[in-house]
Amino acid sequence: MSASGQQAGDLRRPGSVVPQRVKQSLRAILNPVVRLAMALHLTPNGVTVIGLGLTIVASVLVGTGWLLVGAALLAVGSVLDAVDGALARAQGGGTPFGGFFDSTLDRSGEAILYIGIGAWLLRTQADPILPVILLMVALAGSFLVSYAHARAQGIGLAADVGLAPRTERLVLVIVGVALAGLGWTAGLIGALAIIAALTIVTVVQRIRHVWNLTQAAASESKEN
Amino acid sequence: MSASGQQAGDLRRPGSVVPQRVKQSLRAILNPVVRLAMALHLTPNGVTVIGLGLTIVASVLVGTGWLLVGAALLAVGSVLDAVDGALARAQGGGTPFGGFFDSTLDRSGEAILYIGIGAWLLRTQADPILPVILLMVALAGSFLVSYAHARAQGIGLAADVGLAPRTERLVLVIVGVALAGLGWTAGLIGALAIIAALTIVTVVQRIRHVWNLTQAAASESKEN
Repeated sequence: MSASGQQAGDLRRPGSVVPQRVKQSLRAILNPVVRLAMALHLTPNGVTVIGLGLTIVASVLVGTGWLLVGAALLAVGSVLDAVDGALARAQGGGTPFGGFFDSTLDRSGEAILYIGIGAWLLRTQADPILPVILLMVALAGSFLVSYAHARAQGIGLAADVGLAPRTERLVLVIVGVALAGLGWTAGLIGALAIIAALTIVTVVQRIRHVWNLTQAAASESKEN
Repeated sequence: MSASGQQAGDLRRPGSVVPQRVKQSLRAILNPVVRLAMALHLTPNGVTVIGLGLTIVASVLVGTGWLLVGAALLAVGSVLDAVDGALARAQGGGTPFGGFFDSTLDRSGEAILYIGIGAWLLRTQADPILPVILLMVALAGSFLVSYAHARAQGIGLAADVGLAPRTERLVLVIVGVALAGLGWTAGLIGALAIIAALTIVTVVQRIRHVWNLTQAAASESKEN
């Protein structure tokens, strides 16, 4: 990814809760993996499918109680998750299907991960009501953030604003699973509560943002 | 809604699992409600917000064990859900923001309803693991069906195919909640299992459909 591409990426997402240095170190890992994928003649869509496969394995591991191994695999998967797009750019630009496929499988992976965490909470917690409801709100909130973005794109608007885009959510949930793996379940429940709260705020931010954009467009077309 | 509009709607959604007569009777209720909304000077976005409010109340009722009252309220809400669009058309066409707002609040309502059902299952079932996991798969699958549609729209494609669009999912879940309210919890769990299976099939159908559309567009641009 070029420096200007990075900057554009940063400018599009103000108010992120993940420090820039975390994002930068993720990017530093990215380039050698992209070169490896090219050497192995993998297509971007192939990398997307491998990424979903890793997430499914990680989710089964988390669901069956191997939380630390699952969190480590999710961290590896989160790098792969950026590789498909970077590989597509390195090969001269992605296809419309590739972008659609990547986004849809990203959402599937997010859901599968939350279901794995849900299975673990249901199996191990004496009173799973609050944690599982927080998990469902976090899952639904995450989906709504992505849905609002995609739906705005459908009417030609960019709803990239908000506190909880995908990378931030992923870092929070991986840290939460790792904390639970270290024996501190309240860390996971806290991470889910933070994701639930941040995603609800982000959905409201995106609805307001699209409202402002459509109002600005309407008053502009009246003036002309 | 005009007859041609109805036909276009039917043509866009082949393979639906809900009989046409159910849809037709829903439409018969629609017109007087639209006239009432116009008499009350309600805006389409106002109707959307009222619909979400009804769903929140229904979800709390379901979560606290008032399943039959909740199901009845959801049935009322499902009519309101069609009123905003019909009202917008009757008032000379909807706005881009209205469409975005309606879709995003529809998804929010769907999530809130599933969370209410989840709370009820967690509170009442001796072994809630399987029902709650089915519920999470049904929720995630429903979201993925809508997400794939919105994401395809963003690249200019219509992914309206599939067995489980919103109306069919809503009918299934309302029937399931009503059956549980009549004491047959297996009916609700069965409905969730059917929604889970149908939505997964629908997501695969939509991914294949978008693949076929993009391949057709690519070969057409090569020939030209």
